[in-house]
Amino acid sequence: MEPTVTESYTPTPEDHFSFGLWTVGWQGRDPFGDATRAPLDPVEALEHLAELGAWGVSFHDDDLIPFGTDERERERLVKRFRAALDRTGMVTEMMTTNLFTHPVFKEGAFSANDRGVRRFALRKTLRNIDLAAELGARVYVAWGGREGSESDAAKDVPAALDRLAEAIDTLCEHVISRGYDLRFALEPKPNEPRGDILLPTIGHALAFIERLEHPEMVGLNPEVGHETMAGLNVVHGYAQALWAGKLFHIDLNGQHGAKYDQDLRFGAADLKSAFFLVDLLEHHGYGGARHFDFKPLRAEDEAGVWVSAAACMRTYLVLKAKARAWRADPEVQAALAAAGVPELSVPTRGPGETLGQLLADASAYEDYDPEAAGRRATNIERLDQLALDHILGVA
Amino acid sequence: MEPTVTESYTPTPEDHFSFGLWTVGWQGRDPFGDATRAPLDPVEALEHLAELGAWGVSFHDDDLIPFGTDERERERLVKRFRAALDRTGMVTEMMTTNLFTHPVFKEGAFSANDRGVRRFALRKTLRNIDLAAELGARVYVAWGGREGSESDAAKDVPAALDRLAEAIDTLCEHVISRGYDLRFALEPKPNEPRGDILLPTIGHALAFIERLEHPEMVGLNPEVGHETMAGLNVVHGYAQALWAGKLFHIDLNGQHGAKYDQDLRFGAADLKSAFFLVDLLEHHGYGGARHFDFKPLRAEDEAGVWVSAAACMRTYLVLKAKARAWRADPEVQAALAAAGVPELSVPTRGPGETLGQLLADASAYEDYDPEAAGRRATNIERLDQLALDHILGVA
Amino acid sequence: MEPTVTESYTPTPEDHFSFGLWTVGWQGRDPFGDATRAPLDPVEALEHLAELGAWGVSFHDDDLIPFGTDERERERLVKRFRAALDRTGMVTEMMTTNLFTHPVFKEGAFSANDRGVRRFALRKTLRNIDLAAELGARVYVAWGGREGSESDAAKDVPAALDRLAEAIDTLCEHVISRGYDLRFALEPKPNEPRGDILLPTIGHALAFIERLEHPEMVGLNPEVGHETMAGLNVVHGYAQALWAGKLFHIDLNGQHGAKYDQDLRFGAADLKSAFFLVDLLEHHGYGGARHFDFKPLRAEDEAGVWVSAAACMRTYLVLKAKARAWRADPEVQAALAAAGVPELSVPTRGPGETLGQLLADASAYEDYDPEAAGRRATNIERLDQLALDHILGVA
Amino acid sequence: MEPTVTESYTPTPEDHFSFGLWTVGWQGRDPFGDATRAPLDPVEALEHLAELGAWGVSFHDDDLIPFGTDERERERLVKRFRAALDRTGMVTEMMTTNLFTHPVFKEGAFSANDRGVRRFALRKTLRNIDLAAELGARVYVAWGGREGSESDAAKDVPAALDRLAEAIDTLCEHVISRGYDLRFALEPKPNEPRGDILLPTIGHALAFIERLEHPEMVGLNPEVGHETMAGLNVVHGYAQALWAGKLFHIDLNGQHGAKYDQDLRFGAADLKSAFFLVDLLEHHGYGGARHFDFKPLRAEDEAGVWVSAAACMRTYLVLKAKARAWRADPEVQAALAAAGVPELSVPTRGPGETLGQLLADASAYEDYDPEAAGRRATNIERLDQLALDHILGVA
Repeated sequence: MEPTVTESYTPTPEDHFSFGLWTVGWQGRDPFGDATRAPLDPVEALEHLAELGAWGVSFHDDDLIPFGTDERERERLVKRFRAALDRTGMVTEMMTTNLFTHPVFKEGAFSANDRGVRRFALRKTLRNIDLAAELGARVYVAWGGREGSESDAAKDVPAALDRLAEAIDTLCEHVISRGYDLRFALEPKPNEPRGDILLPTIGHALAFIERLEHPEMVGLNPEVGHETMAGLNVVHGYAQALWAGKLFHIDLNGQHGAKYDQDLRFGAADLKSAFFLVDLLEHHGYGGARHFDFKPLRAEDEAGVWVSAAACMRTYLVLKAKARAWRADPEVQAALAAAGVPELSVPTRGPGETLGQLLADASAYEDYDPEAAGRRATNIERLDQLALDHILGVA
Repeated sequence: MEPTVTESYTPTPEDHFSFGLWTVGWQGRDPFGDATRAPLDPVEALEHLAELGAWGVSFHDDDLIPFGTDERERERLVKRFRAALDRTGMVTEMMTTNLFTHPVFKEGAFSANDRGVRRFALRKTLRNIDLAAELGARVYVAWGGREGSESDAAKDVPAALDRLAEAIDTLCEHVISRGYDLRFALEPKPNEPRGDILLPTIGHALAFIERLEHPEMVGLNPEVGHETMAGLNVVHGYAQALWAGKLFHIDLNGQHGAKYDQDLRFGAADLKSAFFLVDLLEHHGYGGARHFDFKPLRAEDEAGVWVSAAACMRTYLVLKAKARAWRADPEVQAALAAAGVPELSVPTRGPGETLGQLLADASAYEDYDPEAAGRRATNIERLDQLALDHILGVA
Repeated sequence: MEPTVTESYTPTPEDHFSFGLWTVGWQGRDPFGDATRAPLDPVEALEHLAELGAWGVSFHDDDLIPFGTDERERERLVKRFRAALDRTGMVTEMMTTNLFTHPVFKEGAFSANDRGVRRFALRKTLRNIDLAAELGARVYVAWGGREGSESDAAKDVPAALDRLAEAIDTLCEHVISRGYDLRFALEPKPNEPRGDILLPTIGHALAFIERLEHPEMVGLNPEVGHETMAGLNVVHGYAQALWAGKLFHIDLNGQHGAKYDQDLRFGAADLKSAFFLVDLLEHHGYGGARHFDFKPLRAEDEAGVWVSAAACMRTYLVLKAKARAWRADPEVQAALAAAGVPELSVPTRGPGETLGQLLADASAYEDYDPEAAGRRATNIERLDQLALDHILGVA
Repeated sequence: MEPTVTESYTPTPEDHFSFGLWTVGWQGRDPFGDATRAPLDPVEALEHLAELGAWGVSFHDDDLIPFGTDERERERLVKRFRAALDRTGMVTEMMTTNLFTHPVFKEGAFSANDRGVRRFALRKTLRNIDLAAELGARVYVAWGGREGSESDAAKDVPAALDRLAEAIDTLCEHVISRGYDLRFALEPKPNEPRGDILLPTIGHALAFIERLEHPEMVGLNPEVGHETMAGLNVVHGYAQALWAGKLFHIDLNGQHGAKYDQDLRFGAADLKSAFFLVDLLEHHGYGGARHFDFKPLRAEDEAGVWVSAAACMRTYLVLKAKARAWRADPEVQAALAAAGVPELSVPTRGPGETLGQLLADASAYEDYDPEAAGRRATNIERLDQLALDHILGVA
């Protein structure tokens, strides 16, 4: 039942793995250091990723078409990229807008205090939604990297949320009016590059969506590292997004706690949490891309980039096999039952039980023995250790 | 315009300050230490708080009526407490249920894996909602302190959220059926006493409310310290709750970053954030109680309890006066304008502007000069320093 | 080379596993909840641990002899415990003093502002050092749980460090004067139960030791969870303590980042870090006890206590086998070399190279090609992924 | 006694304020964004800072002389800078080496696995020590920004500490051999740009110094933000460095908890901690530069740079005046005494008291009443609130 050493864990397009062009293309520029790697041609990225067994890519407009490119060059670049997609069989599964690199966005984009910047940000996004639709992307991600502040004096947050909502509503209006088959996915992040970013967690973004004009068109693209930066349980967060029907896309990577955004390769930080995340995605039928948003370490050379990209997929496949084995293990099933896990799916009120009946049920309160219930076995430690054994391959 | 040293900052009931009975009544028991203070009679707490200028109190059922008290004694305790309320003129502005101290709740209450525990938790809450209504409380808080887990194996999170929703729906049904004038306020917390608590932040709780049967009856009771524990900007969080129309109640205190729940007195940790929080509450017309949920330091004796309670109110009044002076200062108004803060309230799209018109506006994109916009002054540092000057009293 | 599923991972006394009596004896009292488990007789703890394969125990004076016990009862309890040690073959490998539970220590012990408290704390410790020596313990741990503050106004830190040093110097003087074969191990912790604790990390405690009268008698007892609470790399911290010759004792457990002190069972949180910690301890010849300082989850009943204690030892043994296999794997050895890991042990200056020679070596600077060196392969991602494969059992 | 609004808080050279050239010269390049400000000529920086009332500057070699500059141009740049120093009356009070920006240092400098890189780093530093001495700097800072790792597999930490020690020993040998009047100051940081940096906190660096060949020549340059990133109490850390006689230099700035390195202007984050830090420095006679290592917000234009630099100095002066008023206030003195703060400076053992006398003092233990001591007043809340009142200007 346990995966054996002979299993290959070799990815194929059926695994639906995808990578941002900016991930393998990251040149290693960080707040204290210059680039360590040469620029990577998007077409070369496609080819390499296809060879490694990936299924698709995602990108910011500026990853493919540098900021300020004229119309003719834009068309040439897009055409060349489409040809490479056709040649490699790769798909553009997601697209997004870069609203954070250029100085114009230094104080925000959709929620910049400056109205001209906001209009420019909207227009930059609208035009790239057309490109996304043209390339067949089904998800358009919005990460508001600079929608935030370092000073509570300088940002009127309710007004900022109004402007963010106005922006997303406008994008939805555009998609509807053009008849695109495209949904939006908001990507929460608590901070960096701004001191505090609006919609900092999965929860805040989910709540925000409910105040939009077309909540049904908007979901989430949560990132493992971003939730970890807020010290939150990643699996809990993804589960709440699933529960709300809003897990439209995912960013898989690794992060060691509350510090700068590390974007480590998937599985490289909290391995146990990665196991339970894969288990959640596979077990709950998440149907979207298995999308990696990581940065190969700045110290690596170009060869190291592909080693780390391949490792992301391998680790996912290993954990997927382990999750399957975990679910299938009779000892685990018994331990889950002993811990009462399946019992939580039984509603608290009986079938058809009225409030009056609940209030009248003496066994629920008057005759209930809380002392005995306080002494009951919960069997959590045993269940958790079984998971550890499965992860370690010693179950 | 600046508050002068002669201003007294003495609270009166008109300031709507309230305290949890468990705050001044905390005996100082912590994970590594025994109680340092004697139990405090709730009636004595009322009297002391009334003397200090507070307006009201809040409490958990068990704060007033110890777990397991029989019916006759319960009635006696409630009657005695009502008499003290009448005598002191204090109000019970909020009530809540203790679903975390007794061992029966060791694995959760509304989302315990054990169904019997869930039914018991519901019944314990339902009966105390009756008491809350009887005492005239307008807000009923639900803090799910043990609704969570330390092991991702042992809690099916989507099922847990179903059960939490079922519980809140049941409570709402009860309030409706009885015709009580009572709203619910969920209190998010990321962790402690459980490793990870469900609905860990303001955002997660706001999102959860939208999936309830009666979202209009349910809002939030966010706590300064709890948001700080997740490294989130407290003012941003409260502002999003206000924006969503969900700031039903508040817990004011202090916390130094991501560590155990400190419950320091209000203002004792991040003073600048406390200033901006008071500014937000006062400026945006928050109408509820100014409620303190803090713990006088364990090292203090009984006299220190009242010193710290008085200090919470004093600091709030000082900051309120400063916030008023800040808003009224012409130099600040000029600095806000220079930073473009009021401009954020101007919609990004013009009055009646259609999407087509936005797309056709060359000034918004084709003729826009992002380089010039990237060089513009934002004037944040100056504005923020003015705030510091106001806080320090050197403006 | 990889451990097989048939390997038993059953501990024996030769593995030198030990547990604090307070770990398995924790009753589950936390800041928000009452005890969930009955008190555990220390003798029963000994017997259970012996059965499970442990080698020894550690304890605070008050774990064995409740605070305030009279002399006669103290002797009876010690005698009974010694008999159980003899019967079970277990050893008391470490002892420590409880200077944090009783209210007398509410504002500190060795560094309390109150001098009477300081003298009492010294005397309480001195008498129990005699007991430690009598029972054959070789390490005496000092955790200054309440040596700290919540207010920078209320603690003169340089004076506090003077008092801490005075206390440790006094304890050393006592051990020397009595001729005991006993060393001290300081246990750093950043916070909880105090807002900030003095000597908050491995580094601060190592530095403090150098200002003592007998630095050679004093080392560290670092805890996995405590370093994690400060967001520090646990393996780096233990390695610096080893490098300084100061790793006298260890506390193994688990912790999820910067939050309340979780004391999870060993391996239950950051599994990859646990692997590298075991590798460090085993590879660098750490000779002390493999000592667990964890808390079985409060939700567990008595049976769960022993499940979790056994799991701590099992996980250590699994990781030890994996660390051995990792070091022995030729592919790993090649990858370590490719990453230049062994090269770091070659001094930067050549054998006998003078400063003048270094300054005159043109190949080191004038003729050095930093651009080429900036492009070199570092092979970290590959090496790290190999470690992951070993942990997952798919190498 | 309280500073009045008419007090000017205008800095003069006597205040010993200094700034890193890289602070006001930061162009706003961050991990997600391009530069927002033009390069700043070091000479222009000097002139501006002199006008604002600063006393001196510090810099990395590469701030003044770009990496790779030839010898002749280097001389020209230095000569021009010296002339500007003479003209403005500013001093170069500290110098340091950039061992982190160029790709050659991508895997570390003094502790890079690659020996050639280590030799290059040594030589780059040695030559700039000569420049520091020539310019009259008295402190040479060593921040090991890339001395660390993201993988526990890829760095042998004990070997790395050996190499770091070898490097610092070599630098000390050079200073001695040349007869320079120069001391070294290590700057700890927990992470960023590496996942984990060696010598992550004040404590770790202090401990490391004790294993050097010339510990007397090496001290610390702690940074407010760096200690905050580890969730540690800044004042406690600086106090331990002072206590160890190792506070050679300081980096003043602001940081909101555990997240990316913010380098906010001094006082902009935790204002209360900034007050107590200034109180510590002024009260304990810290004699070095009041040195700011901050980054004007990326969103600011050039004018905003000088606004923020001036604000750093203003806030320091305001807090200095408040600290003086705090110490002089009779109410505060009474409150300090009531909290027992001065009593901590009284040794625990009496003058000449032997260990035997301590052990024989029944009043210290046998006749001591811990219950009464457990009930004593500690008066911390009152003292802390008085500090808040002083900070707020309402004392």
